[in-house]
Amino acid sequence: MAFVATLSDSQPRRPSIQSLVDLVSAGMDDVNELILSKAGSNVELIPEIAKHLISSGGKRLRPMLTLACADMFGYRGDGHVTLAASVEFMHTATLLHDDVVDESDMRRGKLAARKLWGNQASVLVGDYLLGQAFKMMVDVGSLEALRILSSASAIIAEGEVLQLGAAKNIATSEADYLRVIEAKTAALFAAAAEVGPVIAGQNEQMKQAARTYGMELGYAFQLVDDALDYGGTSADLGKDVGDDFREGKITLPVVLAVARGTDGDRTFWKRCLEGEDIEDGDLEQAIELLKKYDALSDTVDRARNYGDKALKALDPMPKGSHNDALADAVAFCISRVS
Amino acid sequence: MAFVATLSDSQPRRPSIQSLVDLVSAGMDDVNELILSKAGSNVELIPEIAKHLISSGGKRLRPMLTLACADMFGYRGDGHVTLAASVEFMHTATLLHDDVVDESDMRRGKLAARKLWGNQASVLVGDYLLGQAFKMMVDVGSLEALRILSSASAIIAEGEVLQLGAAKNIATSEADYLRVIEAKTAALFAAAAEVGPVIAGQNEQMKQAARTYGMELGYAFQLVDDALDYGGTSADLGKDVGDDFREGKITLPVVLAVARGTDGDRTFWKRCLEGEDIEDGDLEQAIELLKKYDALSDTVDRARNYGDKALKALDPMPKGSHNDALADAVAFCISRVS
Repeated sequence: MAFVATLSDSQPRRPSIQSLVDLVSAGMDDVNELILSKAGSNVELIPEIAKHLISSGGKRLRPMLTLACADMFGYRGDGHVTLAASVEFMHTATLLHDDVVDESDMRRGKLAARKLWGNQASVLVGDYLLGQAFKMMVDVGSLEALRILSSASAIIAEGEVLQLGAAKNIATSEADYLRVIEAKTAALFAAAAEVGPVIAGQNEQMKQAARTYGMELGYAFQLVDDALDYGGTSADLGKDVGDDFREGKITLPVVLAVARGTDGDRTFWKRCLEGEDIEDGDLEQAIELLKKYDALSDTVDRARNYGDKALKALDPMPKGSHNDALADAVAFCISRVS
Repeated sequence: MAFVATLSDSQPRRPSIQSLVDLVSAGMDDVNELILSKAGSNVELIPEIAKHLISSGGKRLRPMLTLACADMFGYRGDGHVTLAASVEFMHTATLLHDDVVDESDMRRGKLAARKLWGNQASVLVGDYLLGQAFKMMVDVGSLEALRILSSASAIIAEGEVLQLGAAKNIATSEADYLRVIEAKTAALFAAAAEVGPVIAGQNEQMKQAARTYGMELGYAFQLVDDALDYGGTSADLGKDVGDDFREGKITLPVVLAVARGTDGDRTFWKRCLEGEDIEDGDLEQAIELLKKYDALSDTVDRARNYGDKALKALDPMPKGSHNDALADAVAFCISRVS
């Protein structure tokens, strides 16, 4: 039985992404095959880098949304597979460029492509994947899907530029930060979901519902990620904790803690995040401050709120296993941190 | 009267781009207006960087090709203006990324955007312009034009990756180098020209003719640029000479000189271009070697050859002022160096 209660209710079992994975597994096999074939090129470096990223996992949540949001309307055809692969290429291109811009050393627990092949190759292979993504969308032939995904592409880049301004600035407001994550994360989730009903020939109400579902899930997903980067609300620190802190990234937990903190706290955040002058014990000190001001639990609360809105967006959409699995995906996303 | 003789014949007057500029000037006003409006964004940095690049000139040859190749078939509408602006955005995005990849300091005689705003902003604003380019193409609604331009986008990036491999490698062959410039320069010229007859609803023969014209002109244009960077075949060195040399770029003049030179010459090229260890007098020495082995004049000869093929491609296309102006553009391109 699928998880249908709102996220604020007590949860009878650990939510899982498995129902979604199972439902779209045949389609995802096709997506993965298409991704590998379209990442090919006679220019050796391209498949090498693309395969490094593609094989390094990630949950492929975005293409799964596209498949599920087309399948739930009984779509017959393979356009959703091609659009799903395009969405993943857009995402992969963004990761490549992001790592260059953020000067990141690691990505999903592996060395970032830019550390292995250099910034130059990362920029150019990102451009190539973006070009391939558009070629694939054109193959599908839906101008409406093209409009949605090309808009997302411009919005993502706009969000990244906006984040450049916010980076290393602890005066970033909550509203500013939400604007950044709407553009850099939620917009692609929204587009990935919306093109499902679009290609299945559904009406405006269904397209809007899928779009809202994706958008709210995207917000929730990003905020959970932000909280997890400081160990979430649990006491034990996983091994991937502190990346955002070390890279001087301003995320919602920091925004909340800075706003609620003393002048002394602000001096601390300023030194660590704006000055990137980090000493032993600073991460622990940061986490202590985040907890003192309820910044992590409030970030998770906000994520839960977005998750509730995502669940609500599923209401008008067809009931059944796909609707249930999309609800499970929301619960799973939140459960990662709570 | 337009210039119609083949380029190998003696030229009665200095060829000029003016006939093309005059023919499409009304359309180019619209293109420029559209470019400025679509380079806008609430994120301040974006219009700032975009306008820096856009106002820094350049001949806008690519969008002029799109307009002329639509107008010559009597196209009525404004789709060609939107496609022309998209083509210029694709080109501008490429320049932004190129300068990051090549670590260039200057672009069109001004400081490169990356020197003014940083590599990060250059990467991201390039992504934004590419996203806007695709949105604009989608607005036009021609799937065929979208296919042509999205393919060009992937091919350009592929060419840039290929060039990364060739960069700083004096063993690059002429065939390798031609493959690079086909992808990074000629492909966009070809696409820019081809979408003209496409949007004007022309048949395959006309589309192919326009495509070939653009492709061959693109080769000629790039080779002339390569020769000009070493002062061309004239004796006097302009102020923009030597950029490729200082950046360690392997271009056709170098490829030819290396292949024809002695072991001692190769040691010189290796030190300067692979090692980027350049001393006073090295540029003069390089130019001397290029002249000794006829590397500049042979590069120009090859450009002239491509130019002749471009002129030939105009044969089946409608006669008249547009055909003449496109022929003039070829002659102008070659005349810059000879």
